[in-house]
Amino acid sequence: MSKLQRTQNRGGEEKILVREELFKPWPKARHRVQGCLRWVKRQLFRVGEDWYFLFALGVIMALLSFSMDFTVSKLQNAHRWLYQELGGHLLLKYLSWTVYPIALTAFSTGFAQSITPHSGGSGIPELKTILTGVILEEYLTIKNFGAKVVGLTCTLAAGSTIFLGKVGPFVHLSSMIAAYLGRMRTSVMGDYENKSKQYEMLVAAAAVGVSTVFGAPISGVLFSVEVMSSHFAVRDYWRGFFAATCGAFMFRLLAVFNSEQETITALFKTNFKVDFPFDLPETFIFMLLGALCGAISCAYLFCQRWLLGYVRRNWLTAKLLATDKAVYSALVALLLASITFPPGLGHFLASRLTMKDLLTSLFDNRTWSLLSQNASLERPPQVDPDNLWLEWWDPTFTIFGTLLFFIVMKFWMLILATTMPMPAGYFMPVFLYGAAVGRLIGEIVAYLFPTGISSDGVINPIIPGGYALAGAAAFSGAVTHTLSTALLVFEATGQIAHILPVILAVLVANAIAQKFQPSFYDGTIIVKKLPYLPRIRSRHISSYKVTTEQFMRTDITVLAKDSNFKDVLKVMTSTEALEYPVVENRESMILVGTVKRLELILFLQTHDAQPQDNQTKKLLEGNLSEDCTIDPVTLQLSIWTSLHQAHNLFELLSLQCAFVTSSGRIVGCVTRNELRTAIEDLANPRNPK
Amino acid sequence: MSKLQRTQNRGGEEKILVREELFKPWPKARHRVQGCLRWVKRQLFRVGEDWYFLFALGVIMALLSFSMDFTVSKLQNAHRWLYQELGGHLLLKYLSWTVYPIALTAFSTGFAQSITPHSGGSGIPELKTILTGVILEEYLTIKNFGAKVVGLTCTLAAGSTIFLGKVGPFVHLSSMIAAYLGRMRTSVMGDYENKSKQYEMLVAAAAVGVSTVFGAPISGVLFSVEVMSSHFAVRDYWRGFFAATCGAFMFRLLAVFNSEQETITALFKTNFKVDFPFDLPETFIFMLLGALCGAISCAYLFCQRWLLGYVRRNWLTAKLLATDKAVYSALVALLLASITFPPGLGHFLASRLTMKDLLTSLFDNRTWSLLSQNASLERPPQVDPDNLWLEWWDPTFTIFGTLLFFIVMKFWMLILATTMPMPAGYFMPVFLYGAAVGRLIGEIVAYLFPTGISSDGVINPIIPGGYALAGAAAFSGAVTHTLSTALLVFEATGQIAHILPVILAVLVANAIAQKFQPSFYDGTIIVKKLPYLPRIRSRHISSYKVTTEQFMRTDITVLAKDSNFKDVLKVMTSTEALEYPVVENRESMILVGTVKRLELILFLQTHDAQPQDNQTKKLLEGNLSEDCTIDPVTLQLSIWTSLHQAHNLFELLSLQCAFVTSSGRIVGCVTRNELRTAIEDLANPRNPK
Repeated sequence: MSKLQRTQNRGGEEKILVREELFKPWPKARHRVQGCLRWVKRQLFRVGEDWYFLFALGVIMALLSFSMDFTVSKLQNAHRWLYQELGGHLLLKYLSWTVYPIALTAFSTGFAQSITPHSGGSGIPELKTILTGVILEEYLTIKNFGAKVVGLTCTLAAGSTIFLGKVGPFVHLSSMIAAYLGRMRTSVMGDYENKSKQYEMLVAAAAVGVSTVFGAPISGVLFSVEVMSSHFAVRDYWRGFFAATCGAFMFRLLAVFNSEQETITALFKTNFKVDFPFDLPETFIFMLLGALCGAISCAYLFCQRWLLGYVRRNWLTAKLLATDKAVYSALVALLLASITFPPGLGHFLASRLTMKDLLTSLFDNRTWSLLSQNASLERPPQVDPDNLWLEWWDPTFTIFGTLLFFIVMKFWMLILATTMPMPAGYFMPVFLYGAAVGRLIGEIVAYLFPTGISSDGVINPIIPGGYALAGAAAFSGAVTHTLSTALLVFEATGQIAHILPVILAVLVANAIAQKFQPSFYDGTIIVKKLPYLPRIRSRHISSYKVTTEQFMRTDITVLAKDSNFKDVLKVMTSTEALEYPVVENRESMILVGTVKRLELILFLQTHDAQPQDNQTKKLLEGNLSEDCTIDPVTLQLSIWTSLHQAHNLFELLSLQCAFVTSSGRIVGCVTRNELRTAIEDLANPRNPK
Repeated sequence: MSKLQRTQNRGGEEKILVREELFKPWPKARHRVQGCLRWVKRQLFRVGEDWYFLFALGVIMALLSFSMDFTVSKLQNAHRWLYQELGGHLLLKYLSWTVYPIALTAFSTGFAQSITPHSGGSGIPELKTILTGVILEEYLTIKNFGAKVVGLTCTLAAGSTIFLGKVGPFVHLSSMIAAYLGRMRTSVMGDYENKSKQYEMLVAAAAVGVSTVFGAPISGVLFSVEVMSSHFAVRDYWRGFFAATCGAFMFRLLAVFNSEQETITALFKTNFKVDFPFDLPETFIFMLLGALCGAISCAYLFCQRWLLGYVRRNWLTAKLLATDKAVYSALVALLLASITFPPGLGHFLASRLTMKDLLTSLFDNRTWSLLSQNASLERPPQVDPDNLWLEWWDPTFTIFGTLLFFIVMKFWMLILATTMPMPAGYFMPVFLYGAAVGRLIGEIVAYLFPTGISSDGVINPIIPGGYALAGAAAFSGAVTHTLSTALLVFEATGQIAHILPVILAVLVANAIAQKFQPSFYDGTIIVKKLPYLPRIRSRHISSYKVTTEQFMRTDITVLAKDSNFKDVLKVMTSTEALEYPVVENRESMILVGTVKRLELILFLQTHDAQPQDNQTKKLLEGNLSEDCTIDPVTLQLSIWTSLHQAHNLFELLSLQCAFVTSSGRIVGCVTRNELRTAIEDLANPRNPK
């Protein structure tokens, strides 16, 4: 076009018209099409409307989740095939069993860490920190994406040997996509409403991440709400809901297109009897199961946090983690793979099952203790998809023995696996572990009451699968401090008959876990020393009595409104703050606004530019209020504001720093650090005031 | 004890000891018991911990819900019995059919209105207003409780003739109980944390109200969150979850104890085939159903709001509603009952079914169009509980005809019923109406595709009950602008197989309804002229451009810090504000705090007390900053704050009024009124600036 226009300028009009007609026929049709396209663009890219971005986010993540599942299952089949083909050579079998996960985890660690150190771990703790308003640079850049996808695929392909999942990384991946889409959106439409929109997109992204893993939109949204933030806008919830539904729908749709399923159904479809799902007295057993899961989760959280700290302190592991992360991963994988070697201890750990098979087997609607009374049972040479439970069966150990052994061994194996610095999720293993605990209790109850608990003639056998559901929900809920896992099990299994006992179990487990331990994600934030604002427990009633005056920082540097070059220079060199309060004058100290460090640097540069000039004196006399933008202070605390109120405001408004005034005079400032110290003092009054 | 102590003071120690031993034996045991009681009291009434209040709230509401259901069913049985016994006397039958609901609704209206005018209607709009920080006095006092309970029981006993439900009033009742418990708590433990705790209790109460009606804890919480507030704290969500679970569990437990059910199951238990719940192409039909429900909901909301306004404008109805509310209710009930008279038009409206029967029949797992091909059918003289669908069947009209007739007639009958000024809920009828719409579409689809949609040999018949689920969720979701109804249908029916299509239908319906109409509750708030802050739609991008300066009120009355008696008197007589800004002095106008009107009145009284005294002059000279409490200003807006930000802050912090400052100087103030006008101007730029 520009070429033509240039020709137009040189040549005559007629010539151009001819040329245009030659090169671009049907001008009317073209105009109409162009008009249509403009209309579509106007409709789609209308400022403020971004449903299509949420839709795209859901669809992209569903495609990713599905193709990752597909690749992982192919890789696992290859491993299984290799292992089967080796026949009776025990050493070769051992090598093939161990080398495969070792290679995968070492590659996963090495590849991900070589691209970016941010791609390790789950990603949820960091995202949670970002959502509180802290800027973690580089964390959401798209270059992490490839590292995390490849790394995670390898981690998952290592299967139940390594025993890790994909929920956390998917939340991270989803938020990277969301941040990328957000930047794209900004580049198209300018940066209105940038910050709040970005926040909204990230919240929706977290929901999409969870929902595309389990195909569970509602609990995806709720889980992300509970894990990510302390306050939530209903608007964000709706947007998350929309995106998560698109994601979950597309994820299940792909399974139908791939002929895995006839129609859209749940991921781990169960087949429980729903006429009489559980007897009334069983409710108490469900609550006891919840208490047990809560207790185990406390132990798990404590040990996990301790080990995570220990491997950073111990000289050997610390050195390995600092320089040879891949070697560390390989060593851990060697240990885990050796233990799960099927002809060895793995025989009692159902280690031939994949993660998905494990979960499906635990949610089985049959009662294993009844099935195992059949004497002619034998474990098949290959996993039988219709009788997955046989992998749990051993004639001498019985299913109770294997389940208990699984629970004991996986406890420390899982904790060990979480120290590996590669992209991996920690929700799925916890979920599975809880299902095993529940299954064990369920089988015991079914064994003790073969005809059901009520003794009024009618036989209503116990369904141990229901306990597995409750255990999975309660344990994963306790570890992550969420209640929405209660809904997740129903969305994932497609049956909701056990809803009330499962919720009760989750509530009991959460009550115990929240009382004694920070959640898995908060624990990681603490260990990783990310900025963290602990929550005020309701028993710390003194948070209403402690006032801002008692914990605020009083050594603040202020700038007067009429500060000149020298004053600014003095203040700038003495402190490193990003923002300075501006006062009316140094006598009254009345706060009128704040000024950014960047603005001050600019101020210094312009006034320092031409010292030899005639204007030097004038420049030196130029003052702050004339030459700098003084930002207004929207929120200020008073000296009587209680700790509770201040904490609430910081959380609600994602504040990083607030100034304290008394009758308009600035007297101090409060940052997240002061708040945190004050809250910690509530719990352990080290220096009572 | 006090008597004894007085004796002790007069007499000797020894005498007392003897008397104590005489009157109170086993001092050691008593001491131990007292110690235990003190410990229990300390544990239970520990400040900050109020789980037991939430528990009590859930249990009380469950008991209330169950006993109300019980009473209502007895009353309805009595009516049914009377109607049956009258045999062939058509006039007597007509009288018994109409007089019963007329008497009940007239009594309900008269009784409730005579005790308190606040007890009419649903209660949710008012509670929503309270939760934004507006104080509606008397609205949560316990004296409303009796009026609402008795009135609601009568309304419900009038049954499907009047076609009203109980969700809204239960939310109101629950919040009254919560407010009462809150006051009890304050009286025991002092008024720490009073305001925020009260808010928390009210939020939990709303969840309990919904969950004890449907026995659905999770969707109860979500529904209350979506309806009540624009932001919520995860902490409140947890507390609501706990209370709602206690309520739902107790509610279902009572049904078991009353031998209605063998064990705890869903309220409207369905029995759909879950192996193949729906075929993939059906998803589109579900979405079309969602669009249809969205369109009908827009018409419904518009007509409902119009009629509610019309009956207040029309001189006859307005006069009736002003003076003889009971007569108005009776007249409406007469009209509705005449139409639903079973031998008349009621024959085509399934009017012999109760609300619960109606819903159960619509969620039937059988296909009516298939069943009705059996020629030997006849409608039984009494309702057959196993074949409720026969009430929908007419040989000439066919089930399609009756369903369509039901949908057309109930549309205006329901709208008319909502104008009756008695305690009644409007969620259940909307839910039922949506189920009928869904059932009609489902039956049509089943009729068009008798062997299922996919044509690959396998017969997978359509389940019209699934469409009824989707219709109920979509229509009720669209009317109330909530998504959690999608979950509600599954919790209420105990089957979750249709989750994805139902969510899609709800999303589509909500998208349409939210685009064109305010929600049912917002509409009522608008009609009732309660304080209301409209939300800013994302297409109103200019909300980022409009600054506070453009819409703030500038005619503010300020008090200087050193104001004396005369200044204060002058200000107080000139305006009626509840709070006045205090400035450093009238020249600088720098905002230092606010002072309450009550404080000022006290100030005037003390300084005006002894005019004849020597101290008069001194008193007149006493100034504001010395003798009044000046409250600090936590939040202030700047003139550059955008409308969007200001709106967000008002919603987040439940503000009623905020001052606007520029470099510390007060320049204006913004209340909810100014915000509302500014937001309305965005939509209809009447006076563009």
